[in-house]
Amino acid sequence: MRSSIALAVSASTIWIRQAFCATVGRIEYNAAPPNLSHLFNSSLFYTWRPRSHVLPPNGQIGDPCMHYTDPSTGLFHVGYLHTGAAGATTSDLVRYTDLNTDPTFIRSGGINDPVAVFDGSVIPYGINGTPTLLYTSVSYLPIQWTIPYTKGSETQSLAVTYDGGKNFTELKEGPVIPGPPFPVTNVTGFRDPYVFQSPQLDRIANSTNGTWYTVISGGIHGQGPSQFLFRQYDADYRDWEYLGQWWHEAANSSWGDGTWAGRWGYNFEVGNVFTLNHEGYSNSTDAEFFTTLGAEWSEAPIIPQVSQFREMLWASGNVSSSPNGSVHFEPTMAGKLDWGVFAYAAAGKLLPATSQASKHSGTTVDRFIIYLWLTNDNFGTSAFPTVQQGWSSTLTTVRELSKGTISNVMNDYLVAGPASWRIASQDKSAGTVELVTLNQTIAREVRAAFISNATRTITEPGRTISASASGYGNTSSDLNFAESPSSKFFMLTTTLHFPGAARNATDLKAGLRILSSEHESTSIYYQFANESLIIDRSNSSAAAATTLGILSNNEAGRLRLFNIASGSANGSSSIESLALTIVVDNSVVEVYANDRFVLSTWVWSWYDESTEINFLHEGSTAVRFDDVVVYEGLVDAWPARP
Amino acid sequence: MRSSIALAVSASTIWIRQAFCATVGRIEYNAAPPNLSHLFNSSLFYTWRPRSHVLPPNGQIGDPCMHYTDPSTGLFHVGYLHTGAAGATTSDLVRYTDLNTDPTFIRSGGINDPVAVFDGSVIPYGINGTPTLLYTSVSYLPIQWTIPYTKGSETQSLAVTYDGGKNFTELKEGPVIPGPPFPVTNVTGFRDPYVFQSPQLDRIANSTNGTWYTVISGGIHGQGPSQFLFRQYDADYRDWEYLGQWWHEAANSSWGDGTWAGRWGYNFEVGNVFTLNHEGYSNSTDAEFFTTLGAEWSEAPIIPQVSQFREMLWASGNVSSSPNGSVHFEPTMAGKLDWGVFAYAAAGKLLPATSQASKHSGTTVDRFIIYLWLTNDNFGTSAFPTVQQGWSSTLTTVRELSKGTISNVMNDYLVAGPASWRIASQDKSAGTVELVTLNQTIAREVRAAFISNATRTITEPGRTISASASGYGNTSSDLNFAESPSSKFFMLTTTLHFPGAARNATDLKAGLRILSSEHESTSIYYQFANESLIIDRSNSSAAAATTLGILSNNEAGRLRLFNIASGSANGSSSIESLALTIVVDNSVVEVYANDRFVLSTWVWSWYDESTEINFLHEGSTAVRFDDVVVYEGLVDAWPARP
Repeated sequence: MRSSIALAVSASTIWIRQAFCATVGRIEYNAAPPNLSHLFNSSLFYTWRPRSHVLPPNGQIGDPCMHYTDPSTGLFHVGYLHTGAAGATTSDLVRYTDLNTDPTFIRSGGINDPVAVFDGSVIPYGINGTPTLLYTSVSYLPIQWTIPYTKGSETQSLAVTYDGGKNFTELKEGPVIPGPPFPVTNVTGFRDPYVFQSPQLDRIANSTNGTWYTVISGGIHGQGPSQFLFRQYDADYRDWEYLGQWWHEAANSSWGDGTWAGRWGYNFEVGNVFTLNHEGYSNSTDAEFFTTLGAEWSEAPIIPQVSQFREMLWASGNVSSSPNGSVHFEPTMAGKLDWGVFAYAAAGKLLPATSQASKHSGTTVDRFIIYLWLTNDNFGTSAFPTVQQGWSSTLTTVRELSKGTISNVMNDYLVAGPASWRIASQDKSAGTVELVTLNQTIAREVRAAFISNATRTITEPGRTISASASGYGNTSSDLNFAESPSSKFFMLTTTLHFPGAARNATDLKAGLRILSSEHESTSIYYQFANESLIIDRSNSSAAAATTLGILSNNEAGRLRLFNIASGSANGSSSIESLALTIVVDNSVVEVYANDRFVLSTWVWSWYDESTEINFLHEGSTAVRFDDVVVYEGLVDAWPARP
Repeated sequence: MRSSIALAVSASTIWIRQAFCATVGRIEYNAAPPNLSHLFNSSLFYTWRPRSHVLPPNGQIGDPCMHYTDPSTGLFHVGYLHTGAAGATTSDLVRYTDLNTDPTFIRSGGINDPVAVFDGSVIPYGINGTPTLLYTSVSYLPIQWTIPYTKGSETQSLAVTYDGGKNFTELKEGPVIPGPPFPVTNVTGFRDPYVFQSPQLDRIANSTNGTWYTVISGGIHGQGPSQFLFRQYDADYRDWEYLGQWWHEAANSSWGDGTWAGRWGYNFEVGNVFTLNHEGYSNSTDAEFFTTLGAEWSEAPIIPQVSQFREMLWASGNVSSSPNGSVHFEPTMAGKLDWGVFAYAAAGKLLPATSQASKHSGTTVDRFIIYLWLTNDNFGTSAFPTVQQGWSSTLTTVRELSKGTISNVMNDYLVAGPASWRIASQDKSAGTVELVTLNQTIAREVRAAFISNATRTITEPGRTISASASGYGNTSSDLNFAESPSSKFFMLTTTLHFPGAARNATDLKAGLRILSSEHESTSIYYQFANESLIIDRSNSSAAAATTLGILSNNEAGRLRLFNIASGSANGSSSIESLALTIVVDNSVVEVYANDRFVLSTWVWSWYDESTEINFLHEGSTAVRFDDVVVYEGLVDAWPARP
């Protein structure tokens, strides 16, 4: 993935939230907004700025990438595209320190990358023991899967750091992977090299122990998307041996009918490869191969230089080798890494147990953590008032990935695949199966910090709402929280329990209404009718009426709540509960469900008073809300910033 | 081959030969020279400048390359490295017209070639029917076979012309051949792509008729020199299929004992591939594969970044394919394309019968013509007063190549190989063999022009010199030509006949002394003792005593004069005659012998009066000199230059 817009805003020009409107004086958050695109540059700097998320001091953020844990310090380095690429370090995954006042650590303009730097990844103990970056060096633009490929436009080059990651210096040599191997040169893309080690793959591919691999994401015109697999050939990473397209899908095909993982599209981007067990990153025998990937596609007719759709996916599968030495990945399950249409370009990295963060949190296992990019201008295509905001987009809250289990699932029609889970085992006598899937949770340190650092903890008594006091869209006062936060910075957790009848209750919607006031509100609810978790943004922002680019489309993701065998009578079951965690970091809203569903999006509420929370219930089926807690305040992720 | 020194001399600063010395006034060519390196810039511009040779208006010339006949005009374009590459057109191979006032048609500094443009070659009817250049685009320096290879330093890129060759525009795409194919990446060089078509190779390699091929010259560290063979893969020459190292030799090995073709060295450069029959360039069944190549080597210990030696070689051989599809070239004979140590980097091209030059001269066969680079500062390592001269180096006179025959050769010890000939057939009854070799002659148009345009033709009566009137180095007056040219621009032809006793006459030296006066002279002679043609430059220039870089080393080349069967008695034979053509174009001296030997060098005679010619004879064996003619004047190759 790439970003092409550079926003330069010096810190000295940053306005505080109580800034002055360009034409009418001070910006008033207790009145209807003006057309925000007429305001002074950066006058909206703090209006929607998150505080616990990773984003640069100002300007644009693009894809996360180039993360690593420095073996010499134990600090985790989070990287992202900025002007070139920039980054920060963290000792706890909660608070971050910019690498420099200008956090950029690599810029384009060199011999290999005269035009741009795209995503890359880091070998922490690389050339001469220093962190070594393999990245996409760009020589020609435009690049898009919808247009013919300019040969040599994307090459993979090396850079190393001699100053602890503050700068990565490009090696004085040409690209180490100068292009897709002949004759597969008419690609749709060839970028975002992701380096990894894998004892499993060493065995499968008959490699030396400790070999580094890289997948490069792309595809082939007329054929479909691919991950190209290469293997380190020499100690200096100067040459990489091509092991084939370890994964290829037919153009615009999907996983099953597309219900659970959307389309593979025409071109892959930002592919990561790693192995997980139930605890996290692992090379043990119970670990399985996972990949995260971006898929690009459009509806017909395909318009040159336009990707209508991007899907941020994950897949898990089996890896085998052919007699000719090529290696193949065959998915067994696949899903959405994030259902938000603006969440994309995930970049993960092994976080070793030896990292400072793990030591501080007492985590004794290796983890695999990821950040996603959350674009606030629809990948540069919407008219969001970016200049007025002075920054653009963010990364999502850091997540831990692991192989997840759903136990005691009734072996009924709901478990059939292909899906984002697979049946790991079956208990025929109990009539149940155990499913495995990808688990995603907010990194434990972050969740703990949101709780422990809360300036206010609101515990809303649990309640059963048996019938809607009003129709959807008209919340009566008895659905109000007794106490709502006074800010737009909080984490809310709750668990919803559904009766068996809910499965077929086509009118049932149950959830919460947040960032709510008489002027605005955002509805987050589950409905069985289409097994979806929905974020209704149609009334989220008063600014949508005055300003282009304040998008108000619904966001939706599919989540199946299985029938779980009751401990009691054989054959009896209940619907799996819905455990929600909602992070609201000003305009950033992330919804986590049942450790296997995430939907991240933007909610640009305007009014200061839009902080209320209400229960949301529609339909005649009762729903029980339990364990409702709001942790207000979150954490300032950037204590060292001015 | 590459050139690194750029000399910029504007035409307006050029001085005529009667220029003024920097310190003592007018330069005096009738007195001993001062230290020439103290003179004004360009004050020696005309002192040694040739008039019939190809060189730029001023400044440095490097490798010839990028020649082609424009299909739309029939003009032959001769190219050469200059600042980037420059060129001229010719309709007759005799007179040339610069492409532009500044004849440069491609410059470095683009995305693919930020550092330099090295040699390339042209597909005359290429992309969209326009002349298309495949050349070495350079991103990193230094490059030398004596040092580790910087990956990506040499790539092969395309440029096309839209204005009849005045400019070649680099395609907006990356290199079409981004490097040597994995795993052969630790090369000693990978440059100078030479494109060619070959129906023979189409058959051998099972290619589509009319496929373009390219050899790229180089070698592999620790293994030796190679020519890498590629095949066109698509109509736009965007991709090239690797067919292997079609020719590889062990490091620092030689052809036989090295007598006839020197060493293969450690790295090949400037390889050309073409097929010849007895008439010239041909694809007929009697045509054989030939290649010309530069070989780089040094004596041990090898000093980093120093090539002590360069050999300009040719080879002919058999081409076959392996079951795996790779193609192999196996030499059957090899020799020196030029024995002069300063003659290098030959670049040839098919000159079709449809070219203007061929039409004008009535040549109905296709030809293969070549130019060599003749460095006047020993490849940039000598202290030649280049700035004072205002130009540097030249190309040699254009030559035609063909498969040559030496008939009725006695089948004795002299014909054994490996050598620069091979036995084509044998007549056992006559005790003779027919040899084939590479023939090289001055292009017919040039030779004809030198004769027809002569301002004076001196016919020196033939004579037999039976015993030297003096020892070598002391020419008595009776060896003087009756008439010598009054200038340093002429072509001399003569044939020397040796008695059988000459074969073992270890004291015999026979030839000519040219550019001679009481102060200076240059000896050109053959001696059987080591079967060598020698140019003794020890007394060639009075400037050698005052100025560094006026080199005075001997030049020497090996030429075997066979025993030719007499028409009379069976078994009787006579020594093959020695037919010499000597071109003296001011400081450029080229010696051609028996259509199969060339030695080109520099003779920097200082005195105006050093124009005399004498016979040279030493030893007691008689030698007959016949057909001695001097054609004085040559031709001004650049009538349109100011």
